[in-house]
Amino acid sequence: MKVGVVGGGQLARMMIPPAIALGIELRVLSETDDSSANLLRSGSVGDYRDAETVLEFARGVDVITFDHEHVPQDVLARLVENGVAVHPSPAALAVAQDKLLMREKLAELGMPLPDWARISSPADLAAFLAEHGGAAVVKTPRGGYDGKGVRVVRDVAEVEDWFVAGDDLLAEELVEFRRELAQSVARRPSGEISVWPVVESVQRDGVCAEVIAPAPASSGAVADLAADIAVTIAEKLDVTGVLAVELFETTDERLLINELAMRPHNTGHWTIDGSRTSQFEQHLRAVLDLPLGATGMHRNWSVMVNILGGPISTRYAAVMAEQPTVKFHDYGKVARTGRKVGHVTAIGNELDEVVYQARAAAVPVSLTE
Amino acid sequence: MKVGVVGGGQLARMMIPPAIALGIELRVLSETDDSSANLLRSGSVGDYRDAETVLEFARGVDVITFDHEHVPQDVLARLVENGVAVHPSPAALAVAQDKLLMREKLAELGMPLPDWARISSPADLAAFLAEHGGAAVVKTPRGGYDGKGVRVVRDVAEVEDWFVAGDDLLAEELVEFRRELAQSVARRPSGEISVWPVVESVQRDGVCAEVIAPAPASSGAVADLAADIAVTIAEKLDVTGVLAVELFETTDERLLINELAMRPHNTGHWTIDGSRTSQFEQHLRAVLDLPLGATGMHRNWSVMVNILGGPISTRYAAVMAEQPTVKFHDYGKVARTGRKVGHVTAIGNELDEVVYQARAAAVPVSLTE
Repeated sequence: MKVGVVGGGQLARMMIPPAIALGIELRVLSETDDSSANLLRSGSVGDYRDAETVLEFARGVDVITFDHEHVPQDVLARLVENGVAVHPSPAALAVAQDKLLMREKLAELGMPLPDWARISSPADLAAFLAEHGGAAVVKTPRGGYDGKGVRVVRDVAEVEDWFVAGDDLLAEELVEFRRELAQSVARRPSGEISVWPVVESVQRDGVCAEVIAPAPASSGAVADLAADIAVTIAEKLDVTGVLAVELFETTDERLLINELAMRPHNTGHWTIDGSRTSQFEQHLRAVLDLPLGATGMHRNWSVMVNILGGPISTRYAAVMAEQPTVKFHDYGKVARTGRKVGHVTAIGNELDEVVYQARAAAVPVSLTE
Repeated sequence: MKVGVVGGGQLARMMIPPAIALGIELRVLSETDDSSANLLRSGSVGDYRDAETVLEFARGVDVITFDHEHVPQDVLARLVENGVAVHPSPAALAVAQDKLLMREKLAELGMPLPDWARISSPADLAAFLAEHGGAAVVKTPRGGYDGKGVRVVRDVAEVEDWFVAGDDLLAEELVEFRRELAQSVARRPSGEISVWPVVESVQRDGVCAEVIAPAPASSGAVADLAADIAVTIAEKLDVTGVLAVELFETTDERLLINELAMRPHNTGHWTIDGSRTSQFEQHLRAVLDLPLGATGMHRNWSVMVNILGGPISTRYAAVMAEQPTVKFHDYGKVARTGRKVGHVTAIGNELDEVVYQARAAAVPVSLTE
């Protein structure tokens, strides 16, 4: 079994341990020599936008999958033309690559979305603002992540620079939400689907800071609805591998879809330590069309906290001594302000303790360091 | 943090996942290009018996540790002379390398051992047999593993070939035991020790077939005694890293030491899936003198079953579907009759179910395959 992963970020990195356990030969196409996942003898370095590079990389693997959604459709088409199995498929990925296409497809499926509109001009945006209380979330359809490409605007001038590029923009109502949730599922080409518990995702400055699994007080209708939404999307869009659906739980108790990701997702990192099957193992099983693993939790609660900025390993001596139950995950990245360089996960049966442990492990031990 | 592991077997292989998680650069010195652990860009291939090769390999790492106990003492001495941190130390490793030295040291410490004797001649063995009901276990002091170098003898002629080599042999009484146990601990150079639950190890044909953690009915005096024995050995012999102590539980309710291993051990593989901290992560933490992780279990029971012969991955489609909770570990080895090529682990709260799941996943699905 050989799996080729395009992209050498932390998601590809975290696929390596389950690949080793399962005896899968993982080949990663990294962007640069010092990419997070460029650890293996079987790795390559090259430009994922170049069709010849990706075709050459794909030679001899059983399936190509992804660390990110940025591989151009023309490159994906070349893979398919050459008989390479690609999961998720180019057609499914297209929906994750373009936020406007995503809204169109999800609306067709009757999925619950914030009010949205395609914005082709400042006049369009002015009209949308007028209809939505003078505020909107404006997003560039492509290339955004971690708060980039997303602005809350109350005046057309605030996205003036984005109109210059000439591409359409997405405008969405500013949803009044109680909290943000995320629902991950995995689906095999042959149809089997597995579902993890819905989680709460706490964002700071547009970046996921903390994830609580399961989302507190989510055992009933909310959990069922979140699972239904993700399963429906996975089936109707023929998603293969892991699908993560970011959701708003509104103050009037609806769930609205915020974003989709067709790959392992930050809100699923807790599964490495908290679930019988991690999202990374499940993604590999799914894209190889192997039976999916059980998704039960080891303990009642898992809390994941991202490490931003860094470094993480220089804190080990103090933090490991204080928090012997916490699990550490370092992405092998150069520390930079605000950059995700790792995460920690705590699991246990009492939420207050687990939250405390994870947060304590994620912050610098001393203010003087 | 850079750790060099001498030896590229499955133990080194299973150190790779926790090294990636912790952001430790693992460098493995493998025997051959297709060694089980020769997966990393940072790996080397070379002869661990050659001092220059090992010295070159050790350049730039923070600590050298081991996949096996076979590195010659003169090579270890050269490392120490050159200022390389070596864990476990050559002095500790010497005890694990020579079964006669091991008995001498453990006897000095007052540790409970089967009756034993150094055998220099057929006459010595004849005398030992006469004193022990006509039966003995005879072992070559060096190089044995998985039943190799061990014979149950009732006649001197049965080890005639071993006397030819001229080295002393070890004779031990044939212990009447109820079951075999194993106790693993980990110890840092600075002294901290962590203890996993004592486990039951089921052997077939001299090879570990199955491990049940914890050993059934071992919550009281047996567990305390097993832990005391392992902690005492680790402290008195200054063992660093993981120490596994194989024990006989005798029919008259004593614990006697069978063998020691100063590295992660087959009887500790269950910790990957069943414990908060796996023996492989703990070994890395210990040899780097980092604080040790918690050793609590995820569920009441973990059962590990070795896969002998193989292959394992060709069974996935059927076995994963039948046993979605079982975790699979493939060592990337060419299948050969009787060879350990992987293991599976099941965890759960009911022992009967867990044993069933692990065994079902470990045997061929169909007799016709």
